[in-house]
Amino acid sequence: MADEFFYGVTLTGENSSVTWDVVSDEDYVRGQKLVIKQILLGAEAKENEFNVVEVHTVKDSVQIPIAVLKAGETRAVNPDVEFYESKVTFKLIKGSGPVYIHGQTIRDDVEPVDMEEED
Amino acid sequence: MADEFFYGVTLTGENSSVTWDVVSDEDYVRGQKLVIKQILLGAEAKENEFNVVEVHTVKDSVQIPIAVLKAGETRAVNPDVEFYESKVTFKLIKGSGPVYIHGQTIRDDVEPVDMEEED
Amino acid sequence: MADEFFYGVTLTGENSSVTWDVVSDEDYVRGQKLVIKQILLGAEAKENEFNVVEVHTVKDSVQIPIAVLKAGETRAVNPDVEFYESKVTFKLIKGSGPVYIHGQTIRDDVEPVDMEEED
Amino acid sequence: MADEFFYGVTLTGENSSVTWDVVSDEDYVRGQKLVIKQILLGAEAKENEFNVVEVHTVKDSVQIPIAVLKAGETRAVNPDVEFYESKVTFKLIKGSGPVYIHGQTIRDDVEPVDMEEED
Amino acid sequence: MADEFFYGVTLTGENSSVTWDVVSDEDYVRGQKLVIKQILLGAEAKENEFNVVEVHTVKDSVQIPIAVLKAGETRAVNPDVEFYESKVTFKLIKGSGPVYIHGQTIRDDVEPVDMEEED
Ligand SMILES: [Mg+2]
Ligand SMILES: [Mg+2]
Repeated sequence: MADEFFYGVTLTGENSSVTWDVVSDEDYVRGQKLVIKQILLGAEAKENEFNVVEVHTVKDSVQIPIAVLKAGETRAVNPDVEFYESKVTFKLIKGSGPVYIHGQTIRDDVEPVDMEEED
Repeated sequence: MADEFFYGVTLTGENSSVTWDVVSDEDYVRGQKLVIKQILLGAEAKENEFNVVEVHTVKDSVQIPIAVLKAGETRAVNPDVEFYESKVTFKLIKGSGPVYIHGQTIRDDVEPVDMEEED
Repeated sequence: MADEFFYGVTLTGENSSVTWDVVSDEDYVRGQKLVIKQILLGAEAKENEFNVVEVHTVKDSVQIPIAVLKAGETRAVNPDVEFYESKVTFKLIKGSGPVYIHGQTIRDDVEPVDMEEED
Repeated sequence: MADEFFYGVTLTGENSSVTWDVVSDEDYVRGQKLVIKQILLGAEAKENEFNVVEVHTVKDSVQIPIAVLKAGETRAVNPDVEFYESKVTFKLIKGSGPVYIHGQTIRDDVEPVDMEEED
Repeated sequence: MADEFFYGVTLTGENSSVTWDVVSDEDYVRGQKLVIKQILLGAEAKENEFNVVEVHTVKDSVQIPIAVLKAGETRAVNPDVEFYESKVTFKLIKGSGPVYIHGQTIRDDVEPVDMEEED
């Protein structure tokens, strides 16, 4: 069965970062992932200051901004991206925040049935 | 079978809050969750006033804003977040509203079939 | 099998309303629902006039705005909400429209398989 | 098995239109549909000109705008609507475009398993 | 089983492009696809410059813009489109970027079970 949890973290101050990682648990043989649904700029953010969140996936080493926020222009983005079986770090590479990251973690998600293998 | 219901609640006035909870029902052995699809600022909201909705999940004690709304800038957000097996409270920590929270509750949602366990 | 249809209705003039209802059909034993994906303000809408769509679910009697639209600010919202086994009414409680409501109806949607009941 | 394809068409000039239709193929007994995910206004669109895309479903004869776009206000909408087993036409009823319509077609999509019928 | 990976690429400078392709692997008999969830304009983009991303699908040769971005107007779009079994190229046909493309690749995705074929 899948374990699912709400994921909510806050980045405050340039270069602040948070890391999510898979856990070592033989029960989670079918996979672990983190889904990012929304990245939101706080009401306290400075007017006209860019706030940029970069993701770094350790396993395949992709490093790319996934949110560019600015009060008065873009309050929130909805990336709806997923990170599979990899440690990932989110870092506020520009701006002072606060920036809120929302989503969910799914561990041991059951894969769709492969009928050929079942035969 | 899953019981699904539209979820719609209103927050009006700073510090107003609403709580959703799982129900005690042995029929719902496979899980209960609340999905938040949209948070919307009412037409009566004051121009340029921030309205911030914070969520508090009781089980794992996460406390984080999930909506920052402002008339003339951000009328609605679509967080698409899910809360599993936990009492959650939504509180208007800034602003006078009204703010509308929309989504659905799913109780006893059947998990995807685990073929290995079925063998 | 599920019957699925595009749902598209127009509200024009304050207090205009449309109603969707489940149908009486013993073939639809597994459920009927209406999903609202987008609510859109027409090009003819008056500048700076609020257009507010309220939903009223008859079965559990929830009454709440699900769209607040204003030309020049918010042209469309994407509530992505679902109404299950209940008559629902959408009413333009503020503004003169036109407002377009888009989504789909699903009747007799097959539930995920419950293996315990199959044993 | 389902055949899935990216769907991308362009409307340019008032009253230009495109039509999608189901194909006659006895292999596609379980259904064909067109899903519209995004409607986007081109960079060449005139400032402050409304561009309105209307859909017309032939089978049940619904005719309704699904996108209202305006440079400087609304660059894109995400209707996420589906058209089932019906010829549909998209027409630019207002504006000169260009407007891009994006989505996917799914033919012979396998329905969720109905266990009662399988017994 | 399905192999899923986060997809994140950057386009910088007019006419820069990136290509995704299916891989030759007999294990992936059930299909490979690329899903594009978000296209985001970088903080460094020039004010009022249009940035247009065009997709070109090799197999069926569709060529169409899928993102029109402009600082101060449209920071991000969420096309949520899928490309199946085809080499696809994304090209920045207008603007100097940077533009970030986010999504996921799914290889060997198991199709929904076709019970008739299983009998
Ligand atoms: Mg979604
Ligand atoms: Mg969606």
